[in-house]
Amino acid sequence: MWPDTRINALFGIELPILQAPMAGSQGSELAIAVSEAGGLGALPCALLSIDKIRAEMGIVRQRTSRPVNLNFFTHTNPEPDAVREAAWRKRLAGYYAEFALDANDIPAGPGRNPFDDAACEVVEDTKPEVVSFHFGLPDQKLLDRVKAAGAKVIASATTVAEARWLEEQGCDAIIAQGAEAGGHRGIFLGDDIASQPGTMALLPQVVDAVSVPVIAAGGIADHRGVAAAFMLGASAVQIGTAYLQSPEATTGPGHRAALAEARDDRTVLTNVFTGRPARGLVNRIVREAGPISPDAPAFPLATGAIAPLRKHAEAAGSADFSPLWAGQAAALGGTLPAGEFTQRVAAEALKLMGRR
Amino acid sequence: MWPDTRINALFGIELPILQAPMAGSQGSELAIAVSEAGGLGALPCALLSIDKIRAEMGIVRQRTSRPVNLNFFTHTNPEPDAVREAAWRKRLAGYYAEFALDANDIPAGPGRNPFDDAACEVVEDTKPEVVSFHFGLPDQKLLDRVKAAGAKVIASATTVAEARWLEEQGCDAIIAQGAEAGGHRGIFLGDDIASQPGTMALLPQVVDAVSVPVIAAGGIADHRGVAAAFMLGASAVQIGTAYLQSPEATTGPGHRAALAEARDDRTVLTNVFTGRPARGLVNRIVREAGPISPDAPAFPLATGAIAPLRKHAEAAGSADFSPLWAGQAAALGGTLPAGEFTQRVAAEALKLMGRR
Repeated sequence: MWPDTRINALFGIELPILQAPMAGSQGSELAIAVSEAGGLGALPCALLSIDKIRAEMGIVRQRTSRPVNLNFFTHTNPEPDAVREAAWRKRLAGYYAEFALDANDIPAGPGRNPFDDAACEVVEDTKPEVVSFHFGLPDQKLLDRVKAAGAKVIASATTVAEARWLEEQGCDAIIAQGAEAGGHRGIFLGDDIASQPGTMALLPQVVDAVSVPVIAAGGIADHRGVAAAFMLGASAVQIGTAYLQSPEATTGPGHRAALAEARDDRTVLTNVFTGRPARGLVNRIVREAGPISPDAPAFPLATGAIAPLRKHAEAAGSADFSPLWAGQAAALGGTLPAGEFTQRVAAEALKLMGRR
Repeated sequence: MWPDTRINALFGIELPILQAPMAGSQGSELAIAVSEAGGLGALPCALLSIDKIRAEMGIVRQRTSRPVNLNFFTHTNPEPDAVREAAWRKRLAGYYAEFALDANDIPAGPGRNPFDDAACEVVEDTKPEVVSFHFGLPDQKLLDRVKAAGAKVIASATTVAEARWLEEQGCDAIIAQGAEAGGHRGIFLGDDIASQPGTMALLPQVVDAVSVPVIAAGGIADHRGVAAAFMLGASAVQIGTAYLQSPEATTGPGHRAALAEARDDRTVLTNVFTGRPARGLVNRIVREAGPISPDAPAFPLATGAIAPLRKHAEAAGSADFSPLWAGQAAALGGTLPAGEFTQRVAAEALKLMGRR
């Protein structure tokens, strides 16, 4: 028996293990495996067209009757800034030359779609049990529609202040995203990444500050992290990186190879891939142009300039320009099938807590 | 019963709670209170003269027969760099003017003493049960003398690589210092603070990498953190910030006031006070000249230039130039007497783990 079953009851799941949505490294396959195992699978929609979201949700609904989480980014696309874009392309010029690319041929582009009316229609049509947001929440009208569609709404908080704000806006649960977490920081009330707390400090302070259940994220990659999160007051955990090497993930070969050699001290927060700070393993572009560059265009505009470098490098078997998203506990992850991992980590956490 | 009693057995203590040495904010009084309560009190020696260390240890030995930890820094004092020193004083010129101070009257100075022959003699004479080092270890000859004096030797690791190195050098236990921790980062094999892991990620990876027992530090300020650390594989915890507001600490009034208003997202790593990155609450000098300045002289030389500003500001009731060391869980700390806090946090952690 889990020390806290609020999330299990709220979402209608057996195991308080949420699979973190990881845009670009997974689709319906991973979500289905985790949901079928009793956890909560997630389908990240930030990189998908509306048609693709609909198609993927169709596959999910065909293959599992268990609850699923549909995940969206809630940024506002910025006005393009020609000066910054030019500075960034100048910074990348040497790399374009390496691949004989003409910088003028490379379109600028957002690369990420924020949650909007069309996405909301998919939610209304496919009725996911849970909808999660990253970078805050959509506007009230859209949020009301999501709730009216029957979805429980959750979102990431990187600070106590963000957790309080999300609770006030009506979130049913809060994801406390500690600084260890891989991928994009969910930070939305400020932009100071230097003061972002780690999970051990953030989690109990968020638990004390809000009355809704709290989902722990960041640095959790095995049963020990799950048990620790419950001791700190979590009602569930969200695990991302540990699923990246599973056969159900679509993680590329270069990314998988980097994860297999991951170390505790080889990730940094970088903005070179998208314009927003996100945690990944250090590779050539991060080392040489980052980790944080003031020239990188605002999120998600930075995506366009890197895309062709990544494409050409990956075609040549190199991960030098690929975002190698990973949390600080990446080295604890393995290659187990996602369903087996989900059930094992839950069973071992219960045993460790003396509750099996 | 604790899930792991290796540290209790190794040090001869009842409770696996180590009080973190906090130079400048405590002396024998705090160490005695924690040791008498059954934990391991610590006397930080970095800011003390040899005579003062001897006197403080005399008080400790008079007032408790329990084990105590004598803590030392193990840096090498750098050659003064006139250019960097001048740049830093120029950066601070506006502040000197505010207090009508002549920059030429302010001596440069190390401000911190590394562990040396004289300090080692005190260890040999007073025979502390535990000696802890920060920033690595002293040279082999000194280390051998410490061990020959009967002390168990522990030191801080901020990465798995540092933990492995410390074990190879013969440490009896390793302190895994997560990024949440207040005060100086113990980092010594590199200087990249951007890639330093948080406790949730660091601790289990260190536990997996070494065979000696591991002491968890960073973000632990109440019974929840203690229980979480044990779930992650720790054999003990080291708690610092939560003792800073105790009556036995010598924490100044400005520092206490700042701690009473601490928030999860109001600390940063800064080098403006000493030249080395250390975590503290953001105040005026950190905001305006830091948090990390390339001009700050190498540790511990930066100490000299700030000292008179701090002195004059504190005399006027301002903490604008004081190092407000604090970890990211500072807001969880209270004002309980240190002994009562030690016993309560241990009892509540056992209860939370279902082991009371």
